[in-house]
Amino acid sequence: MSNIWGRNLRLSIFGESHGQGIGIVIDGLPAGFSLNMEEVNRHMERRAPGRSEFVTPRREGDGVEILSGVFNGFTTGAPLCGMIRNKNTRSEDYEKDLARPGTADLTAHIKYKGYNDYRGSGHFSGRITAPLTFAGSIARQMLASKGIHIGSHILQIGGERGETFDKAGQIHRKQLIDLAQSDFPLLNEEKGEGMKAEILRAREEKDSVGGIIECAALGHPAGLGSPFFESMESNLASMLFSIPAVKGVEFGGGFDLASMRGSQVNDPLFYEEGKILLRTNHSGGINGGITNGMPIVFRTVFRPTASIGKEQNTVNLATGENSTVTVEGRHDPCIVPRAVPVVESALALCLMDSMMEAGWPE
Amino acid sequence: MSNIWGRNLRLSIFGESHGQGIGIVIDGLPAGFSLNMEEVNRHMERRAPGRSEFVTPRREGDGVEILSGVFNGFTTGAPLCGMIRNKNTRSEDYEKDLARPGTADLTAHIKYKGYNDYRGSGHFSGRITAPLTFAGSIARQMLASKGIHIGSHILQIGGERGETFDKAGQIHRKQLIDLAQSDFPLLNEEKGEGMKAEILRAREEKDSVGGIIECAALGHPAGLGSPFFESMESNLASMLFSIPAVKGVEFGGGFDLASMRGSQVNDPLFYEEGKILLRTNHSGGINGGITNGMPIVFRTVFRPTASIGKEQNTVNLATGENSTVTVEGRHDPCIVPRAVPVVESALALCLMDSMMEAGWPE
Amino acid sequence: MSNIWGRNLRLSIFGESHGQGIGIVIDGLPAGFSLNMEEVNRHMERRAPGRSEFVTPRREGDGVEILSGVFNGFTTGAPLCGMIRNKNTRSEDYEKDLARPGTADLTAHIKYKGYNDYRGSGHFSGRITAPLTFAGSIARQMLASKGIHIGSHILQIGGERGETFDKAGQIHRKQLIDLAQSDFPLLNEEKGEGMKAEILRAREEKDSVGGIIECAALGHPAGLGSPFFESMESNLASMLFSIPAVKGVEFGGGFDLASMRGSQVNDPLFYEEGKILLRTNHSGGINGGITNGMPIVFRTVFRPTASIGKEQNTVNLATGENSTVTVEGRHDPCIVPRAVPVVESALALCLMDSMMEAGWPE
Amino acid sequence: MSNIWGRNLRLSIFGESHGQGIGIVIDGLPAGFSLNMEEVNRHMERRAPGRSEFVTPRREGDGVEILSGVFNGFTTGAPLCGMIRNKNTRSEDYEKDLARPGTADLTAHIKYKGYNDYRGSGHFSGRITAPLTFAGSIARQMLASKGIHIGSHILQIGGERGETFDKAGQIHRKQLIDLAQSDFPLLNEEKGEGMKAEILRAREEKDSVGGIIECAALGHPAGLGSPFFESMESNLASMLFSIPAVKGVEFGGGFDLASMRGSQVNDPLFYEEGKILLRTNHSGGINGGITNGMPIVFRTVFRPTASIGKEQNTVNLATGENSTVTVEGRHDPCIVPRAVPVVESALALCLMDSMMEAGWPE
Repeated sequence: MSNIWGRNLRLSIFGESHGQGIGIVIDGLPAGFSLNMEEVNRHMERRAPGRSEFVTPRREGDGVEILSGVFNGFTTGAPLCGMIRNKNTRSEDYEKDLARPGTADLTAHIKYKGYNDYRGSGHFSGRITAPLTFAGSIARQMLASKGIHIGSHILQIGGERGETFDKAGQIHRKQLIDLAQSDFPLLNEEKGEGMKAEILRAREEKDSVGGIIECAALGHPAGLGSPFFESMESNLASMLFSIPAVKGVEFGGGFDLASMRGSQVNDPLFYEEGKILLRTNHSGGINGGITNGMPIVFRTVFRPTASIGKEQNTVNLATGENSTVTVEGRHDPCIVPRAVPVVESALALCLMDSMMEAGWPE
Repeated sequence: MSNIWGRNLRLSIFGESHGQGIGIVIDGLPAGFSLNMEEVNRHMERRAPGRSEFVTPRREGDGVEILSGVFNGFTTGAPLCGMIRNKNTRSEDYEKDLARPGTADLTAHIKYKGYNDYRGSGHFSGRITAPLTFAGSIARQMLASKGIHIGSHILQIGGERGETFDKAGQIHRKQLIDLAQSDFPLLNEEKGEGMKAEILRAREEKDSVGGIIECAALGHPAGLGSPFFESMESNLASMLFSIPAVKGVEFGGGFDLASMRGSQVNDPLFYEEGKILLRTNHSGGINGGITNGMPIVFRTVFRPTASIGKEQNTVNLATGENSTVTVEGRHDPCIVPRAVPVVESALALCLMDSMMEAGWPE
Repeated sequence: MSNIWGRNLRLSIFGESHGQGIGIVIDGLPAGFSLNMEEVNRHMERRAPGRSEFVTPRREGDGVEILSGVFNGFTTGAPLCGMIRNKNTRSEDYEKDLARPGTADLTAHIKYKGYNDYRGSGHFSGRITAPLTFAGSIARQMLASKGIHIGSHILQIGGERGETFDKAGQIHRKQLIDLAQSDFPLLNEEKGEGMKAEILRAREEKDSVGGIIECAALGHPAGLGSPFFESMESNLASMLFSIPAVKGVEFGGGFDLASMRGSQVNDPLFYEEGKILLRTNHSGGINGGITNGMPIVFRTVFRPTASIGKEQNTVNLATGENSTVTVEGRHDPCIVPRAVPVVESALALCLMDSMMEAGWPE
Repeated sequence: MSNIWGRNLRLSIFGESHGQGIGIVIDGLPAGFSLNMEEVNRHMERRAPGRSEFVTPRREGDGVEILSGVFNGFTTGAPLCGMIRNKNTRSEDYEKDLARPGTADLTAHIKYKGYNDYRGSGHFSGRITAPLTFAGSIARQMLASKGIHIGSHILQIGGERGETFDKAGQIHRKQLIDLAQSDFPLLNEEKGEGMKAEILRAREEKDSVGGIIECAALGHPAGLGSPFFESMESNLASMLFSIPAVKGVEFGGGFDLASMRGSQVNDPLFYEEGKILLRTNHSGGINGGITNGMPIVFRTVFRPTASIGKEQNTVNLATGENSTVTVEGRHDPCIVPRAVPVVESALALCLMDSMMEAGWPE
């Protein structure tokens, strides 16, 4: 039981990687918003497989059919269901009984007593992030109509690491918009080659590699979020850790704050042109769970894709015998580039949810 | 709106640092459990202020009065409300209008339009983690009765860092139980002096310092948790990020996974004496959001305490004038030692919640 | 925001009467249950329009396509999405601006600022109960596998009223199973003619008529439900009042209890063959929100269908002018016969939800 | 698990009749509202026992201590906890093992395996409605500040029945305000004697009697509520059925609609002075789950109090032996007069919750 998220905007996801289809029901969207489907599809394309040599060659249109909630091009206020049919499924690539190390094969088998759809990780597949991206791409349109923009960049892949937003100076609106257009967004373009080389090297060696995405939002009001259980960090982290392969989330200064002093990282306030602003942003735009008006900044680490072509030791779940498994099929040597719009979607959906606490602004 | 957490076990917290009292309502506890209040108080003591030179000298008994849910020493199954009266409050230490940088003073002022109880951070105070520790200390008793144990250690304070559970070798049950007795739990005792020196140095300089806690659970069954929105990581992170000053959470290999290969970090399965086990634990005991039977391991970073005695630039929230603030009052130069039982409580409450999905085992 | 229900079993509905399709996501179903689709379809047929002269001649297959959550005929434990395509839609029957009295035309227009899909009541249509019936028909199969049976009868239509379960004597298992087979279930067969005559008379007069359904469950354990906000009555009523046209719900003695004495209606306990039983059932099987082991018995009143062929006074929502409306199109002169499986589904889903609080019994 | 209610305004209740205390945490209240405690206490008094011969002589001050959420007389936006100490408890009146027919003694014993606090029904006591009344009396103040008023009258006690709002003509604002002042509110004053006589007769005969409360709200906007699972009727019924002894709820025409025609009960729309209004109010102010601007009108039936002085057959829960029980102690011969402010509170809390969906109006 886990497939429903949110308070003011509620998401209900469904689907298995190789079943009939996958999708999402979005409940609570404001009525009367004119959807730009081209924009939606652009973000779906960013996440879609098969578009470059850095990602899995599995090729899916990922065309979303809207079953409800839109009438004459406008949201109706009723639940919006977006559904994607599974088409290009090569189920024969999947062995039923040999659990792939690092995946949910073992845990799904235990929890669902062997009845889970094991093909391509079934409901545990990263493919279920496609509906999430669909929902997020609607949310970011709505946010953009209020001047709120979201963007991110690939901070690290393998040993190659760029600079953070903070180190690279202020975050600008145009910068975020440009990043959000890119399939391989970078703050330091010169790091791109090294990162791509890491991915290709992993692929050649039938292996995979991890990485870090840094994401930001700009233009949202101060005062969003809540103390304690529904802090902006809690809500965001709860959705980010839903994304398969995410193993860490940090805001603002993050883990580096452990070795720092309060006097270094307390962001000083100042007053300018009728506004209270902060000089620095070590808190990532959030204090006490509530936005302070500065950009929201956080980083998310993705583990190396679990499915690799190298032989690994495992157990046959049916017989209990020790065995080895070599994962055939088409897999991403690094999920990070495709995960960018998913992370952005998580932020967009969280922002929508908290903005709607006070009613969606007309 | 943020003060309620959980599905099968539901928590509702209340209180302000300098108001009448603080407390928690715990709904969904199994009936018929005999509470060990001595054990509860021991964990409350670990979190309480004023017990050593490393923490704030504010001294509170933090005695919890149980208002409901316990009859003749046993839980009744009805909501258990624990309440703590505020006693030792020196409200005069708090200035109403000078926002302390790094705190929720600004954001609370914006969200609640100036009506928030500003004294000692009001409802945003770390003091609200006392009721959470109370609830957690009940949960860990119930878990212990099923052979599940939770413990943690201080991994880093300032520049001084110890080894992780992983590097230090296997996690043992007795080790966790011992750690859970300590007020300053360490895996590498020899690092303790350096850590304490970091805290004292910060105090002397009227400053504060951050740190990292590593926490683990052992003995729980495989199969707890869910894919996606209620993954073990999502639920845990959602509660951990409720704790004031937490700015990052990572599981298993965490952010280090960015620079690693799948072949290095996929935990190989093997079969031994009727059980499927994993050779390594890079995933921190969780795959696909579900426990795999290995210890749950995660790290939480705490920023340096925001309230420091050094002069800082700020704004007067009433007049909008640029100003400076020097926080008087009694503050922790490092919140990490007192935060240990809070982090453990978050894990205990999450484990209880997921164990109860299938009904509390008799 | 309203389209998600439940705690242990969660339902998320979507769809509009004349849009692409309608459906439901069911989250939390136990894995490993073998679905009997014939049985599902039988209940879908009971609710479907166009099957007799007592209901609307709109004819839909209402074939449900299962998009997820079932693999090799067994539930997987992942969310089960059932989707029904809209086919036979005569949208031209619907006027956009003339609000039909008694419907949600006015209130939907206000809430959604005119962006709601007005065709055939859009998301407010009784057609959305088809997915609910689908979910309920799965739940009742699972309940039946544990010996729990649900059935109901038409107690009243217009002026014609039969006897209640109580007056007709004990409820028997076979009786409930037989009732659940019928398209026009009755406790007093001789009342059937009069009820049908009421419906036909209303139809002839281009009018509609209301009625009452009495529903019961048998074979469930004592101890289901909770005090206060999640009492069995609260949960059931919350779902029953979701069904369009429902305007009242009463349990056991219901409104008649107003004129009775405690000594008459307190159900006396007695002990027999190792069991504590109750002599009478004035409480409808529920005390303090929790099942007492007796049959659950409740009645639900349906208002006369709002869409009628008679001319009615109304307002043009676009121009604000007073006007009249004559509803063309195909409508049910009485919704009660088709509502029977919907009411039964509500009970089935509530029972499933509360049974799963303690984990679904193996 | 059942003690938390609401989405935008969340309630968490706790307490047992004869434990340390009872209370409620109200999360989500708007900040900056100046509480009128006199007004709160007036409604608490209306519910309190011991004030007349028609109710139980148990006398409690029911003074609520506010532990949090109020600072300098204004709500802070943080959770507001109101707590009432139990004082006048004569626990010796309660037998542990003899289940009182009609109460939750049996079902609580089963669900909580005998660990429930049995004294005075423990957590199942009507006494827990005191905190609900406290919360409701805050909500109605906030609503009144927006011109929304709530009132109700005793429609029936035993065989004596007055007229409904509908039959008595239009509902007026002053009328509701006056009714809300009364301890025994009536639309037809002349029926009061008969109703009181019913109560006294029941008391003399060591018995109890039931009744019906009709409640209304006026001045709220059209457009509150949602279709389906969070319809105004669903939300209201879910809270009303939380109140011990409630066995039925009906809106507008209610159960009488079964015998009526659509042409009779469809409320015709008309346009007047810039507003769309309805001629009649058979739907009780709600269509499609959403308020239509007409008064919300509903009726709630209360069963006769289960605790009576007459001897009744029962079972000894400890020994399983058939036995008899005569309930000593002080009990209400009719709970209806004291239940009036509880029903009004349910309506006030539901209205607050739905009004806050769009943000509390400034």
